[in-house]
Amino acid sequence: MEFAKQLPRDVRALIREEKITKFTSGMCEGYAQANLAVLPAEYAYDFLLFAQRNPKSCPVLEVSDKGSRELSSTSAVAPGADIARDIPKYRIYRNGILDGEYTDVVQFWRDDLVSFLIGCSFSFEAELMASDIPVRHIEEDRNVPMYITNIECIPAGVFHGKMVVSMRPLPPELVVRAVNVTAAMPRVHGAPVHIGDPAAIGIKDTGKPDFGDAVTIKAGEVPVFWACGVTPQSVIMSAKPSFAITHAPGHMFITDVKNALLKY
Amino acid sequence: MEFAKQLPRDVRALIREEKITKFTSGMCEGYAQANLAVLPAEYAYDFLLFAQRNPKSCPVLEVSDKGSRELSSTSAVAPGADIARDIPKYRIYRNGILDGEYTDVVQFWRDDLVSFLIGCSFSFEAELMASDIPVRHIEEDRNVPMYITNIECIPAGVFHGKMVVSMRPLPPELVVRAVNVTAAMPRVHGAPVHIGDPAAIGIKDTGKPDFGDAVTIKAGEVPVFWACGVTPQSVIMSAKPSFAITHAPGHMFITDVKNALLKY
Repeated sequence: MEFAKQLPRDVRALIREEKITKFTSGMCEGYAQANLAVLPAEYAYDFLLFAQRNPKSCPVLEVSDKGSRELSSTSAVAPGADIARDIPKYRIYRNGILDGEYTDVVQFWRDDLVSFLIGCSFSFEAELMASDIPVRHIEEDRNVPMYITNIECIPAGVFHGKMVVSMRPLPPELVVRAVNVTAAMPRVHGAPVHIGDPAAIGIKDTGKPDFGDAVTIKAGEVPVFWACGVTPQSVIMSAKPSFAITHAPGHMFITDVKNALLKY
Repeated sequence: MEFAKQLPRDVRALIREEKITKFTSGMCEGYAQANLAVLPAEYAYDFLLFAQRNPKSCPVLEVSDKGSRELSSTSAVAPGADIARDIPKYRIYRNGILDGEYTDVVQFWRDDLVSFLIGCSFSFEAELMASDIPVRHIEEDRNVPMYITNIECIPAGVFHGKMVVSMRPLPPELVVRAVNVTAAMPRVHGAPVHIGDPAAIGIKDTGKPDFGDAVTIKAGEVPVFWACGVTPQSVIMSAKPSFAITHAPGHMFITDVKNALLKY
C-alpha cells in the first residue's frame, strides 16, 4: 500500500502540496485517521453536546480553538497540521446543501470557525485484521457499506437525527472476538450497536446501503453493525447550518495518534 | 447503611423534602452518584470542551438544556429529578468565592444556567470492594484524601489548572487488579493516573491532603492515585466565573444509572 509506511506529518505535507489528492485508506499504517466537521462558533456548543450525548457515533478526538486552523498547541493529535490544507479533499456546505469540493479551504476560512475531529473506523479495522478477523469491504476493495437506521440519536440543541451504522459481515465464530476487539476502542466507535437481523434497526436491504458500497454476505455469516462517523455529518446536514466544511468521504485527516493508544 | 437499599428516585424525594440533608455516601447501593457543576451559558462551551479534553478528571455523565432544572427528557440519568432541589447541600460561588451553602437553590435559579453532572469515584469504589479490594478511607470512616498535583490539565477557553487526584493505598499484590477494575469504568475516572511515589506528581506529604482526610498507609503499601471529580470544581473556582452552583463535598446527586452499566 502506497504511503503505508510513511509518518503522518510527511503524508500531511504531501497532501498540503497537493501531491496526494486521493482516498487516505491504508496510509500511515498504525495511525488514527479522523472525520472532520467544521462549524461556525454559534453551532459549536450544540454540536459538542450532541457528540457528548452520542459518543458511539461521535467520538470526539480533538476540537480546535475558535478561528484556529491549527489544533490546540497542547495537543499531540497533529502538531503542525493545518486543518484547512492537510486533507486531500474537502466539502463545503451552505444551509445543508453541498456547494463544492476543494483540495484546500483556505479561501473559505473564517475567524468564527471551530473544527471537530471525530474518530474513524479505519482505526478499529486495523485492529480487527491484526486479530485475524477479515474485513469484507477491504477484501473486496470497496467502501464500507453504511445504512441509516431507525435508532434515534439523543438530540442536543439544533442537532438531531438517526444513527448511521457501518456493517461488516462475519462468520459466527468471530463475532465475540470482534465485539471485544472494538469494545476496547471506545474513542473510535467502540463495540457494535447491533448484531444480526438488519430489520431490527430499520435496515430493509443490506444490498442497498445509503452510503458506500454493498459487500458480499456469505451463507451463514452474521451482519455486525457499528455506529458510524457519517452520523455527525448526516446530522449536521439535517440541521442545515448556514455554513460547514467537512472532509470528502474517504479523504480523512491523518493524525499523529497511534491506533494502539486509542485503547487507553 | 441507611438508605442503602432504597431506589434513587425515592431517596431524591426525601432529599427534596429536606428529610435527608447529610452525606450521600453509601445510599442507593449499586447506583452512580455524580458531582454537580452549574454555570451560566456563557461559560458552558468552554467547560464542556475542558471536560472533553480532560475525560479522566471530568467524565461528563449528562448536561442539562439551558435554563432547565430537569435533565434532558430523553435521558435515563435521572427522570423526574429537580437539579435545584435533589441534592442535600449546595454551594453558591460568586466570582470564584464561596457565598453560602443551601439545601435547595431554587431561589438562585436563572434561565441561563447549564448543569453538568460528572462521574464520581463512589461508583468505582463499589466495584473495587466487590472485587475484594479494600478501600482504606471507607474502612477508617473518613473522606477520601485528595491532592492537587503538578499535572497540568489541557486548558479550554477560560478553564485551566492542575489535576486533583484521590489516593487509595493498596497492598502491592492488589494494584494490578485495581487498575483493571477501574480501567473498565472510564465514565467514572477510569484507571489510575499514577502508581507509587507521590513526589513524582508533585505531592509533598500524603499525610496532608489538600481536600478530605488523611488515611493510614501501612508499611509496604503502594499509594495509588486516580483523577478526581474535584478537579472540575477546582478549575471552575480558579476561572472565577461570575456565578456557579456546585454540590457541597460528599453531598452528591444520586442518579438512576447503575454502576455496572458505566462499564459499557
